[in-house]
Amino acid sequence: MSGQHSEDTPTHNPRPRGRPRTVIDLDAVADAVAELVIDGGENAISIVGAAERLDISRATLYRLVPTKEDLVGIMFERATRQQTEVLSEVVESGIPVRDRLIRLIRMQVETAIRLRGYMPIFFGSDGLPADVFQRWHAWSREFEATWHDCVEDAMAEGVLEQADVGTTTRLVLGMCLWVSRWYRAEDGIGTEHIARVALSLILPEGS
Amino acid sequence: MSGQHSEDTPTHNPRPRGRPRTVIDLDAVADAVAELVIDGGENAISIVGAAERLDISRATLYRLVPTKEDLVGIMFERATRQQTEVLSEVVESGIPVRDRLIRLIRMQVETAIRLRGYMPIFFGSDGLPADVFQRWHAWSREFEATWHDCVEDAMAEGVLEQADVGTTTRLVLGMCLWVSRWYRAEDGIGTEHIARVALSLILPEGS
Repeated sequence: MSGQHSEDTPTHNPRPRGRPRTVIDLDAVADAVAELVIDGGENAISIVGAAERLDISRATLYRLVPTKEDLVGIMFERATRQQTEVLSEVVESGIPVRDRLIRLIRMQVETAIRLRGYMPIFFGSDGLPADVFQRWHAWSREFEATWHDCVEDAMAEGVLEQADVGTTTRLVLGMCLWVSRWYRAEDGIGTEHIARVALSLILPEGS
Repeated sequence: MSGQHSEDTPTHNPRPRGRPRTVIDLDAVADAVAELVIDGGENAISIVGAAERLDISRATLYRLVPTKEDLVGIMFERATRQQTEVLSEVVESGIPVRDRLIRLIRMQVETAIRLRGYMPIFFGSDGLPADVFQRWHAWSREFEATWHDCVEDAMAEGVLEQADVGTTTRLVLGMCLWVSRWYRAEDGIGTEHIARVALSLILPEGS
């Protein structure tokens, strides 16, 4: 979906300066905002900054995205849509619960890394406009419910030790989401490696 | 250490209004700041707000804590000191590595819950004054190294599955620290329960 910015290198913009873009896709906008947050924190979010990253004129971006709140809304839409797509696909795939769990953990680690610029916004104390926050909250609940079902099935089939399903779900999610806090591309430790270590930690016999 | 604020109920101040306090301990100040953050986010931190929570005059608090940065510094000192104390005690106890790991996880979950008001500050993008941030960073590194040693020993003795020690350490820490994001006292799920579920997740045979 993302044109200029590949999924794996969200912090680089390979476009040479001075060649204005005429078509903008919203994923590229979302990536640009995430880059601003990675580099400068939440306060660095601005239409001007995003326009510079995208190498387009401010006027062009203002036509598409009139306010900073709209920028955050675009990030939200992207962050949730991609996860929902993977989640639905995994749930509907009919694969054994152990493989389902493995795919969810991989997806979650991958998302935590790719969207790490979004995390301070979505988990910060006051980064979100009220309507985006409410959509995020509703989405999170549904998202967690899908995870919950998978953990419940995993316990029923002995893949995970029997325990409180809700707490287990949140602990596993937390393990994955916290990766967004410590991941550094320059460490050379990739998504696949982290996901494998996470799996060996909670599903030892399968590593 | 904390006089007015007990460890288990950091969000309640049982002192009746109208009876000014004459002696203030720094732990009570740290708790008051944490309460401000829990209730109103980082931007709610202020000397005035803390003085109200502590039921002391602003002038009295200003004498002890001249700036907002000093308030955050006091939180930092408290957040790190208590964890360092537990960590040193566990490391020096000479107990088997499995029990050491269990105690570290309990401590970490307990800390994540008790200090959840501090988390947005210490893990936020721009909440900390520069000198406090540097002390926090140095402290975190040392703290993580102690965890790292315990995880390494646990793998050497077969308590944990063999895997990359650094990544495993951060995943376990993340699982515990993320509790600060979802814990709600009103859910009725306590520290001990959460710690037990965490242990059953990564040390299944001991649950």
